[in-house]
Amino acid sequence: MLAAVLAVPSLTLGRGAVAPPRSVAPRAAQGTMVAAQGTDERLRFLSEASACEVKDSYGTPAYVYSEAALKSQAETALAFPSAYGLTVRFAMKACPNAAVLQTFDRLGLHVDASSGYEVRRAVAAGVAPSRISLSSQETPADLAELLDLGIKFNACSLRQLAEYGRLRRGDRSTQLGVRFNPGLGSGGTGKTNVGGPSSSFGIWHELLPDVQALVEEHDLAPARVHTHIGSGSDPAVWQRVSGLSLDLCEKIPTVASLNLGGGYKVGRMAHEASTDLAVVGEPVKGAFEEFAARTGRQLDLEIEPGTFLVANSGCLVSTVQDIATTGADGHTFFKLDSGMTELLRPSLRAAPGRARHAAGGEYVIVGHCCESGDLVTPAPDEPETLSRRHLGGDASIGDLVVVEGGSPSRRSGQTRCHSCRPPPRGGVEGPIAVAPVQGRELGVDRWR
Amino acid sequence: MLAAVLAVPSLTLGRGAVAPPRSVAPRAAQGTMVAAQGTDERLRFLSEASACEVKDSYGTPAYVYSEAALKSQAETALAFPSAYGLTVRFAMKACPNAAVLQTFDRLGLHVDASSGYEVRRAVAAGVAPSRISLSSQETPADLAELLDLGIKFNACSLRQLAEYGRLRRGDRSTQLGVRFNPGLGSGGTGKTNVGGPSSSFGIWHELLPDVQALVEEHDLAPARVHTHIGSGSDPAVWQRVSGLSLDLCEKIPTVASLNLGGGYKVGRMAHEASTDLAVVGEPVKGAFEEFAARTGRQLDLEIEPGTFLVANSGCLVSTVQDIATTGADGHTFFKLDSGMTELLRPSLRAAPGRARHAAGGEYVIVGHCCESGDLVTPAPDEPETLSRRHLGGDASIGDLVVVEGGSPSRRSGQTRCHSCRPPPRGGVEGPIAVAPVQGRELGVDRWR
Repeated sequence: MLAAVLAVPSLTLGRGAVAPPRSVAPRAAQGTMVAAQGTDERLRFLSEASACEVKDSYGTPAYVYSEAALKSQAETALAFPSAYGLTVRFAMKACPNAAVLQTFDRLGLHVDASSGYEVRRAVAAGVAPSRISLSSQETPADLAELLDLGIKFNACSLRQLAEYGRLRRGDRSTQLGVRFNPGLGSGGTGKTNVGGPSSSFGIWHELLPDVQALVEEHDLAPARVHTHIGSGSDPAVWQRVSGLSLDLCEKIPTVASLNLGGGYKVGRMAHEASTDLAVVGEPVKGAFEEFAARTGRQLDLEIEPGTFLVANSGCLVSTVQDIATTGADGHTFFKLDSGMTELLRPSLRAAPGRARHAAGGEYVIVGHCCESGDLVTPAPDEPETLSRRHLGGDASIGDLVVVEGGSPSRRSGQTRCHSCRPPPRGGVEGPIAVAPVQGRELGVDRWR
Repeated sequence: MLAAVLAVPSLTLGRGAVAPPRSVAPRAAQGTMVAAQGTDERLRFLSEASACEVKDSYGTPAYVYSEAALKSQAETALAFPSAYGLTVRFAMKACPNAAVLQTFDRLGLHVDASSGYEVRRAVAAGVAPSRISLSSQETPADLAELLDLGIKFNACSLRQLAEYGRLRRGDRSTQLGVRFNPGLGSGGTGKTNVGGPSSSFGIWHELLPDVQALVEEHDLAPARVHTHIGSGSDPAVWQRVSGLSLDLCEKIPTVASLNLGGGYKVGRMAHEASTDLAVVGEPVKGAFEEFAARTGRQLDLEIEPGTFLVANSGCLVSTVQDIATTGADGHTFFKLDSGMTELLRPSLRAAPGRARHAAGGEYVIVGHCCESGDLVTPAPDEPETLSRRHLGGDASIGDLVVVEGGSPSRRSGQTRCHSCRPPPRGGVEGPIAVAPVQGRELGVDRWR
């Protein structure tokens, strides 16, 4: 029996995400319901029958991805308004599964890798190096080799730019980009962010003279400017940031392409909205056109969605492997055969799951680690506080729980502290298991 | 140069830990200092010279453990007051490093494993199965094999007890224990905890008749009762919980040993106190003596410290691999060659590091992941808020940062989402690298 379907809403760090309203916070041990009855939350692509098929064929826990959902989101991203050409890069840190990479590759997306290891992983999955752009906080030790593969390199610090110059003096290819912090971010002061004075990402815009000096010293010709502001859904913010970014492009005459990064909000639950790319993209398109009219330069646009492409395209199918009760004033706990070993998000960021069935008992769902924080149903924004979910009927050991919207980037893979799982068979770089369930609808991934 | 020494204070979930006072919270971007000047925080066992030796010999990042510190904590635990015998089990989920396991094994400690995988890992490190006790939230698929090895098994649910009975009907060995939830925990209502109505761990005490029925049905003779209340430092709580636990022992006449679990508070920073085991242990000893006087049964005592034994016995040595600045109103960021890939604690639980030098500049320290939450110096209890640390002088790329008190159980090992690291060479079960630095003082562990 399918015991529960949970969605993990879109709580992210400093990117303008909206937390679920406080009014839904449970008073644990008093039995307050969390999930509104009659909610329209439904399984996104699995049915009870297909979830059971997954279990029968692959066992649990299993990550399941929907090719149709991946394709639909990719098509939405590829329709981003652009004046003079568009490249969509999948920010693979959101989900480095090889089948997902291959799916997006077939659909025409390029790749944004956030470490040298991710470059290697994408190449191993079959992505052409020329379609991979590396933007990393740490300069890979094997940067020279990676550049020789033909990847695009995005210098994210003055040190990285100098290192590229040392390796590629006089370069006139389109390999080099420069990532700037344009001075504006969407988060609050002091909060972690990907743009603005509280962000460590990219070269601070006021350091442009240092960039120009390094470009001159090493005789370089940067082809792209990158910024990334965790843009949220406000078209006015998009307009301002694209304007600031175009100002930087104007000052580096070799630049032919502007990359505006990713971080688009994606709603996981019925009450949450996603960024409408068609809406936020319009003023960006206009800004590119004004820039062309003023400078004569028609820039290509690049965007780098990650979670946007995958958050609602996958789920974790788990089995209830034990049930505990704690008396009249307590709770009934479902213990899954997964937990923080597979999905860090609920523990890390207090992103509560939410039940989608309207009748039945109330339960707390916990993971399988001997760790009080291994909680699949925390209260909103409170990773330490239990919340109870109103689920559809009783459950028994062996029943399934499906967790959706779990932001694959929060997958913890192997949490070695608990030694809960053996290392992935075949290694992380190997071919993944892709299984045809319901035709080609599903790719099933175990421990990869 | 050694750029910074950071300690991660003892913020844990629902176990009575005390958060640093709010008054030290920084106002990021306004430049308020976080670390008090003149604090007595010092490196616990490395010197600047030995940290550099570690880097020269092993590279960074590297986990470094102090054998002397491990031994000192083990001796403190072995001195826990007991009336009729004591077994100390190391809760290995706190740090599953094989050298640490072997060190404790030599010192006479037994092992508490929290999954079947941990049992395999301890056996691979050379621990005798008879000295390993398994207490897990999930019944291992290979339970029969593990039992055949001769481990102790702690039935943590009615299902587990029934499963043991099925495999070992009529057993009269000392293999079986039963874990109860005695109804009392040290956390607040609704918070995650390891005891009380909000805990999923163990069999609720009111279900004793169900336990007795299963014992009779399968003709079993449990030798131990386990409880675990995350005890904190209040002797009165210890007395109450040991009393509740002894009541359970009284009702199961075959029980010869009571295990009171772990969860002892350990101070990581100068202002934090550790549980004094000699103090909390006295009333426990008295309760055992009263129990013996009343029932004629002299019970052995078991305790299971984990973090208590290792939190201040290890550190992570990292290198500053890049530096970013964000203007007059911004920050200077040190970017490490480690981050949430090696140490989840700061990101997961807002456990801020704290500088130990008294003069110099103010810096934010971030990890190497392209993830705004990869923050080594968050504000207390606020994983998304930057805090600046007042460090001893400027730093350059290549300088070292030592993070202490990082609760090895928060080690993330490989965070596959970023593919930041290749899998550990030799596999997680293989022998670890132990290097003699300063005689036998240090065990150095890379990616294990």
